[in-house]
Amino acid sequence: MNSSAAAPRDRFITATLTLLREGGLSAAGLNEVVALAQAPKGSLYHYFPAGKNQMVGAAIEVYREAVARQITQALEGSATLRYRVTRVFKNIERSMIETQFSQSCAVGAVVLDLKKGDDELRNVCLSALTYWSDIAGSQLIELPYKQRAAAGRVLVNLLEGAQLAARAAASSRPLREACVFFLEYAQAQVAATSQT
Amino acid sequence: MNSSAAAPRDRFITATLTLLREGGLSAAGLNEVVALAQAPKGSLYHYFPAGKNQMVGAAIEVYREAVARQITQALEGSATLRYRVTRVFKNIERSMIETQFSQSCAVGAVVLDLKKGDDELRNVCLSALTYWSDIAGSQLIELPYKQRAAAGRVLVNLLEGAQLAARAAASSRPLREACVFFLEYAQAQVAATSQT
Repeated sequence: MNSSAAAPRDRFITATLTLLREGGLSAAGLNEVVALAQAPKGSLYHYFPAGKNQMVGAAIEVYREAVARQITQALEGSATLRYRVTRVFKNIERSMIETQFSQSCAVGAVVLDLKKGDDELRNVCLSALTYWSDIAGSQLIELPYKQRAAAGRVLVNLLEGAQLAARAAASSRPLREACVFFLEYAQAQVAATSQT
Repeated sequence: MNSSAAAPRDRFITATLTLLREGGLSAAGLNEVVALAQAPKGSLYHYFPAGKNQMVGAAIEVYREAVARQITQALEGSATLRYRVTRVFKNIERSMIETQFSQSCAVGAVVLDLKKGDDELRNVCLSALTYWSDIAGSQLIELPYKQRAAAGRVLVNLLEGAQLAARAAASSRPLREACVFFLEYAQAQVAATSQT
């Protein structure tokens, strides 16, 4: 994608997300974002007058929606639970392989860099994790109704933990193992339900 | 603990770990470490002549051993699997509550801040995650032998993901849920074995 064809705000957002996913909060400095976005610094202040945290917050909100769409598309439909859950993990695996395991979840990276008192940014991250968990839970329709919400949250935690391990190992094995593990758990729940 | 009573190298390591656990790689700058350790900057260069990555690597190695001891102590012994696994999660919960959810795993924080080419530091982090996974797997003696190693890895990924979520939520709920989830998985494995 030729990022210079996009509107300046979108270019700032895209650049911020790339830098967050690579190196966390400190990597997404204003100068670094301006350089990567190839847009004038003045226009960054125009879009984000309150500075870095506002820019990062806006980027995380865009990311939240994009990941939510990806999770929805992977988990919805009439394919088997195994197929749909595997699709969620495969999407992440593909993206990590494309970047040679140099990028992972922007939200995870920000959360682990939060300073005390960064409650606004913390809440933006929490809202993303909660939203993804809710979407995932609502699509795990084979599971008993009362367990879907918790299963959605655990799926998202597992995705975060497995991305971290995949990045450390520069390998997709942790994602594949986490997928198998979640499916074993989910299918045990389905089996327990069908027995009653 | 009065950190100034400790040897300078230990004070640097302790300070580095606190800063990593709070704010990731960028938070553990040499100046910040010197200030928190209350030790002369010259002596930091004496212990870590190669600079920041050497210091962080040394700190992660100390952390790796400390967490390994904690996991071993929690998982070994004759108590039930439920009791022992819960102890692992409770240790982390206690530590996060003590810091009001402002600190999480040092390894997780470093991994998500790694720059391309930081392979030495990446490998130190990978060795910690692998070591913890191996220890955990070896202590899950109720599980079928051939599944212990993978279960140990998934447990560590789940701990990383749940710490991240706990920090975003400033709540220990993600840790408690992940614990319940892992136990359900583990006990389904145990039940499947005892049926054969």
